[in-house]
Amino acid sequence: MDDRFEIRLVGTGGQGLILAGIILAEAAAIYDNKYAVQTQSYGPEARGGASRSEVIISSAPIDYPEVIQADLLLALSQEGCDKYCRDLKKDGILIVDTDQVTRVSTNRVCELPITSIAREITGRTIAANIVGLGLITALTGIVSPTAIERAIAARVPRGTVEMNLQALAAGMAAALKLDADWARPAALAAPAPRGTVEMNFRALAPKGTVEMNWRALAAGIEAALKRKADRARSAALAARAVWSARAWRRRKWAVEKCHAK
Amino acid sequence: MDDRFEIRLVGTGGQGLILAGIILAEAAAIYDNKYAVQTQSYGPEARGGASRSEVIISSAPIDYPEVIQADLLLALSQEGCDKYCRDLKKDGILIVDTDQVTRVSTNRVCELPITSIAREITGRTIAANIVGLGLITALTGIVSPTAIERAIAARVPRGTVEMNLQALAAGMAAALKLDADWARPAALAAPAPRGTVEMNFRALAPKGTVEMNWRALAAGIEAALKRKADRARSAALAARAVWSARAWRRRKWAVEKCHAK
Repeated sequence: MDDRFEIRLVGTGGQGLILAGIILAEAAAIYDNKYAVQTQSYGPEARGGASRSEVIISSAPIDYPEVIQADLLLALSQEGCDKYCRDLKKDGILIVDTDQVTRVSTNRVCELPITSIAREITGRTIAANIVGLGLITALTGIVSPTAIERAIAARVPRGTVEMNLQALAAGMAAALKLDADWARPAALAAPAPRGTVEMNFRALAPKGTVEMNWRALAAGIEAALKRKADRARSAALAARAVWSARAWRRRKWAVEKCHAK
Repeated sequence: MDDRFEIRLVGTGGQGLILAGIILAEAAAIYDNKYAVQTQSYGPEARGGASRSEVIISSAPIDYPEVIQADLLLALSQEGCDKYCRDLKKDGILIVDTDQVTRVSTNRVCELPITSIAREITGRTIAANIVGLGLITALTGIVSPTAIERAIAARVPRGTVEMNLQALAAGMAAALKLDADWARPAALAAPAPRGTVEMNFRALAPKGTVEMNWRALAAGIEAALKRKADRARSAALAARAVWSARAWRRRKWAVEKCHAK
């Protein structure tokens, strides 16, 4: 099964994108039992302050260890966005931090004030990398919320775990809101981008609980954006429930397919 | 010019080998103006606790981003040593931590109690990764001492910079001693391994200063091993002088070759 998924994180030095890449790879490999490769390439642009971190995740061993055409690009700098947005797959996901990126040459883009969210939720802009991980987790489901939480707890400096988990929750909550808004316009409806969370949510949430859970998510999102970390946390928990439901559905589908043979 | 140099760091999770790889790559690329790629690959062995970090350094852009056959292997675990020592080039450098590795299937090996040195110099075994960087720096000259110091200062947690620079100095000092002892036996004399520091030192130190500098180094080595950090620092400075002399000799040779054409 080739489900290779290529992620590129670009920005400037000091934004913690290398750490974010390592956390993502370790979440997938150590806690979600997949294979992962994580790479930094340094050239003259690194001396100019640019930073690039790449993660490849697959359920099979990874043959070529660099990104060929990204499935997801997270851009925390205008320069990085300009340079790499062309290397994205046709149905790839582009996430940009509107605090840093003002010009984007496509309208298939998830735009969010990532740095502002980090500052609002944790008081520190440095947590923007972890907010980014929350966005990636919720939009793609490429790693499970539990795995990313454990990987964060294992990697971030002691004493900052809670702060970083709040940043993750805020990112996940923001993604759910973003995706809902973004997935709606008819122009973008077909072909649906990968990981449209609301659609998946509606398809996968236990019957009879969709509206209730959706309202809970929406409330969590608002709370996250208003710096109420406890309630943001409930949104993250709800997102985890969605993910579990999705994983369960996938397994169920596989079992049924197996029986049909 | 193809001077691609492939380094593999193996051990277990928590030894800080990923951080060491990032520091080495950033020293080469950001402070020494080379190209570098740094990679982590995670598979089932990562879930068993094994850790592997790879760095490729070149003065030209790097085409293939993974180690093909390593020029240097630093093994901080028996399992890592067993698995990867066969993938070393014929004249490659194998460095093992005798605190962790007791069986080695070759006699072309630099054996040092890396973890013990870290504990003696800094009081913390976690600094073994930085002692390892000191060994690599002094044995290969692949990065300059100034660059590795700056990369360490930029990457290690705040408040631990001085401790880590002491660990670096101890590693460099230990390498100089090791290499001198190791290079002497006639059985190993031909072909001389890359990076025989004493030989290079004798060839490259400014004329008339060889004995004086060599005694200063020897004193620094002893001091480092006896936890006298200030004097260990002087050994590191001496090593830096050797590196500068070597770099100067290389440049001189290149200029002469150019004129000869």
